[in-house]
Amino acid sequence: MDVDRERLREDIEENAEFGRIETDSGRGRTVLTGTEANREAREHLVERLEDAGLDVRIDAVGNVAGRWTPESADPEAAPVAAGSHLDSVPEGGIFDGPLGVYAALEAVRAMQDAGVEPTRPVEVVSFTEEEGQRFASGLLGSSVAVGERTVEEALALEADDGTTLGEALEAMGFRGEGLLDAGEWDGWLELHVEQSERLESADVPVGVVTAITGITHCEATVRGEANHAGATPMDDRTDALAAASEFVLDVERAANEVVAESSDTAVGTVGSFDVRPNATNVVPGAVEMGVDVRDVEYDSMETVVSRARESLDRLEGERGVETEFARPFDLEPTPMSDRVRQSAHDAGERAGIETMDLHSGAAHDTMHVAEKTDAGLLFAPSRDGISHNPKEWTDWDDCATATRVLAGALADLGGA
Amino acid sequence: MDVDRERLREDIEENAEFGRIETDSGRGRTVLTGTEANREAREHLVERLEDAGLDVRIDAVGNVAGRWTPESADPEAAPVAAGSHLDSVPEGGIFDGPLGVYAALEAVRAMQDAGVEPTRPVEVVSFTEEEGQRFASGLLGSSVAVGERTVEEALALEADDGTTLGEALEAMGFRGEGLLDAGEWDGWLELHVEQSERLESADVPVGVVTAITGITHCEATVRGEANHAGATPMDDRTDALAAASEFVLDVERAANEVVAESSDTAVGTVGSFDVRPNATNVVPGAVEMGVDVRDVEYDSMETVVSRARESLDRLEGERGVETEFARPFDLEPTPMSDRVRQSAHDAGERAGIETMDLHSGAAHDTMHVAEKTDAGLLFAPSRDGISHNPKEWTDWDDCATATRVLAGALADLGGA
Repeated sequence: MDVDRERLREDIEENAEFGRIETDSGRGRTVLTGTEANREAREHLVERLEDAGLDVRIDAVGNVAGRWTPESADPEAAPVAAGSHLDSVPEGGIFDGPLGVYAALEAVRAMQDAGVEPTRPVEVVSFTEEEGQRFASGLLGSSVAVGERTVEEALALEADDGTTLGEALEAMGFRGEGLLDAGEWDGWLELHVEQSERLESADVPVGVVTAITGITHCEATVRGEANHAGATPMDDRTDALAAASEFVLDVERAANEVVAESSDTAVGTVGSFDVRPNATNVVPGAVEMGVDVRDVEYDSMETVVSRARESLDRLEGERGVETEFARPFDLEPTPMSDRVRQSAHDAGERAGIETMDLHSGAAHDTMHVAEKTDAGLLFAPSRDGISHNPKEWTDWDDCATATRVLAGALADLGGA
Repeated sequence: MDVDRERLREDIEENAEFGRIETDSGRGRTVLTGTEANREAREHLVERLEDAGLDVRIDAVGNVAGRWTPESADPEAAPVAAGSHLDSVPEGGIFDGPLGVYAALEAVRAMQDAGVEPTRPVEVVSFTEEEGQRFASGLLGSSVAVGERTVEEALALEADDGTTLGEALEAMGFRGEGLLDAGEWDGWLELHVEQSERLESADVPVGVVTAITGITHCEATVRGEANHAGATPMDDRTDALAAASEFVLDVERAANEVVAESSDTAVGTVGSFDVRPNATNVVPGAVEMGVDVRDVEYDSMETVVSRARESLDRLEGERGVETEFARPFDLEPTPMSDRVRQSAHDAGERAGIETMDLHSGAAHDTMHVAEKTDAGLLFAPSRDGISHNPKEWTDWDDCATATRVLAGALADLGGA
């Protein structure tokens, strides 16, 4: 079974026209949920699904699904599904999301062309607002498809301009009926760009994800005393920035120690950092920080978080600052299905394509789907690991190669 | 010679009505150059100067001077001058500036009441925009009075709303003629609130400043690589925030070392700190910092600055970041006149008021005046060292006590 590299390329390039951004260094797009660019991208997908003979439906939160039920398949059998998302971050890349949607479609077309006869229907899926740039914090459509959020809650979500998701979908003509239910699928596969450099470094074209890391977001606040930078002697200061700087280095050290001691996939990041009053001639009075901790092992996430708390306790004692620590977001790691992973490795082997195990440090709709059915995630190489940026790039050959593995795995999971 | 505590208090309290702010914790005011509050404060001062029989003139940049030429004085003799400023920071205190202006006026009235007979005229001065909140970065009026800036340059300075200083003065009726020339004064004294806790801690009512620290402002930039906080392994990061955190601690350490080794008045502060892109889930790509270094010894300022540069060099080598360092502002320390200081100490001793030497870490118009004539600076205690804040407070007894020392010193310097 072979995939048509040029057909896949055309689909992704045509999709890249919607919300197109041309920069010196690459090709990007801005496709936020409910915008004209999003409507065009959705309508084009529906057209392409129908061109391939798929039955298209739009659910109540705008998730799009196209089902192929060949004569070989039992229409009542639980389908195997694959897909990703069409929305982007502002000034994002052209592959993050669309590759997974159009690769799933190309996989179906490849099976059709090769006369593959699955015994289950195959479903191509595009979830609403994976990137969470307008209505939610991310993974919106899949959260409804797994019952984490009700349709009513989702439709009531408001953008900054007061528009609800319901209104935005209605305006695009993409507020459908019923609900895509991930629990009805027999299995699921998503192909996505890696967003790291491990495949590129190893010169391996396809990654098979073992687990998606858990994610903890913490908010740490350090309060000292804002004071005149000239008139306050060094020994009379409670400098919130100096204390917060120690915290940043403690979090980095904690993550490095966990990497060295127990789990080399652990990461800890202080990503946001706001200083008040933030004037050159004032000793900083307060710093608010956002901390991101991830790993495939929840225990090692806990270790980093508890060392971050210990750092704040130490700073209270040593520097006289007041501190606060909150953990508003905490998601455990999501292991991928062994059965689905094996299908992917086998498909690679059959096609003579090298595959390698790796983890995903980024969140994907597959995290949600995995709560309801056997789920897998494949990666294609990202040049220099860059994503969420017009510089994001995956070679067309790599797109096609990863799609061949996806198609092979879907055929296998579909009972062909 | 005694000063009238209640007359001084009434002057400062009446002045505090202009731009008044009432807060739970104190009384403040917002008096920016060219505002209605500034016009009212200026008109009230002119009235009070004239009430005391002083000849008032307004110069081309709105500096206000009231001259007392008693019969005992040679009208052609170089006057001795004293004063401060009436403008405030947004939501500033009621003493910072006005104490020095109205204490100078009260000193003249006290000399008049006591029949003191100076042989030189005595001039009460209020400089335009010391705080630098609207047209310049600070010390505006005194910069013109010492020839650091021409009248034309000053009048062309623009506020954010496009108004020029010339237009603002014109609108208030305070665009006068001629120029206050600090070089024509035989000596100068400014009374100001301390903005630190040294007098309060020592329980001494009057400070005699030995030197105003020099001030260096540096801009340090650290550039790493912004990257996905989940998908970027710890050993594959160039985290600009972690590197910048080391820099903050290096600057703090350098200042502490200089304090321990050579000059206990040295201070070094990273006060502003801006992280990009500043999102919890993104490894920081760049940090821009503003560094403030001050001391009464220029050598020790140099030591702190050179250790800050060394820190950046080290971070380039150890963390692979790119760095930039600029020093857009650099002012050497300003020693106060021994003659004027001695007059102040003597005045304290004559009146049975304890005085102590200390330095000023904050900038004052006196820094400029000292370029042209013998200048001195007196401090009154600041409760908890707080200033630029409605909580700023100096007890009325302390205001009067410091004014007695000011009056005694002015009488002495005026040849009485």
